Amino acid sequence: MPRPEKHVFICTQARPPGHPRSSCADHGCAGLYEEFLWHLQQRDLFAKVAVTATGCLGPCSEGPNVLVYPEGVMYAKVGKDDVAEIVEQHLVQDRPVERLLMTEEFWGRTA
Amino acid sequence: MPRPEKHVFICTQARPPGHPRSSCADHGCAGLYEEFLWHLQQRDLFAKVAVTATGCLGPCSEGPNVLVYPEGVMYAKVGKDDVAEIVEQHLVQDRPVERLLMTEEFWGRTA
Repeated sequence: MPRPEKHVFICTQARPPGHPRSSCADHGCAGLYEEFLWHLQQRDLFAKVAVTATGCLGPCSEGPNVLVYPEGVMYAKVGKDDVAEIVEQHLVQDRPVERLLMTEEFWGRTA
Repeated sequence: MPRPEKHVFICTQARPPGHPRSSCADHGCAGLYEEFLWHLQQRDLFAKVAVTATGCLGPCSEGPNVLVYPEGVMYAKVGKDDVAEIVEQHLVQDRPVERLLMTEEFWGRTA
């Protein structure tokens, strides 16, 4: 694999029902990883974009969480319906999707 | 959580014995994530450094793999004995550990 221009990290953390931190699984992250893979495959972006499923990324209450490096842009409450927009606008055109950005309370300021 | 200055991603992918791609679990990644947490706790670095366990990061044959963003430095064949050096030299002093860098064949050139 070449070094990717963008690396997308998708939380797939699950916790037991009623856990005080909740989890991205509890917030509906199932299928999100596969949705990213599908759109990247359709756009033939695997040479440019890597996708990795992860454990906890931090702000569990705001999940499903998706984090894009090297810019360190964290998205909150991402659903499968948001993936095409993230892929096209952010990963291809390099313009993060403002409406999905994690608040500064949970992730600090994005440079 | 504030936005971290460094984000360490540690592959914990397991695959069945004999799988053609092998896995970081097969190469001995067990305990690596906890080792990072221990050293970060000892150095009181949790406000500066985030650590996340991941699925596959790509170059399975070279694992255990550890990836540090935002710089996109990938380390190969990382053992628990290497963690203190990565924490002190890279995460604190911002000088990647040359002897552990993934080869360009598997990760391209580090900027």
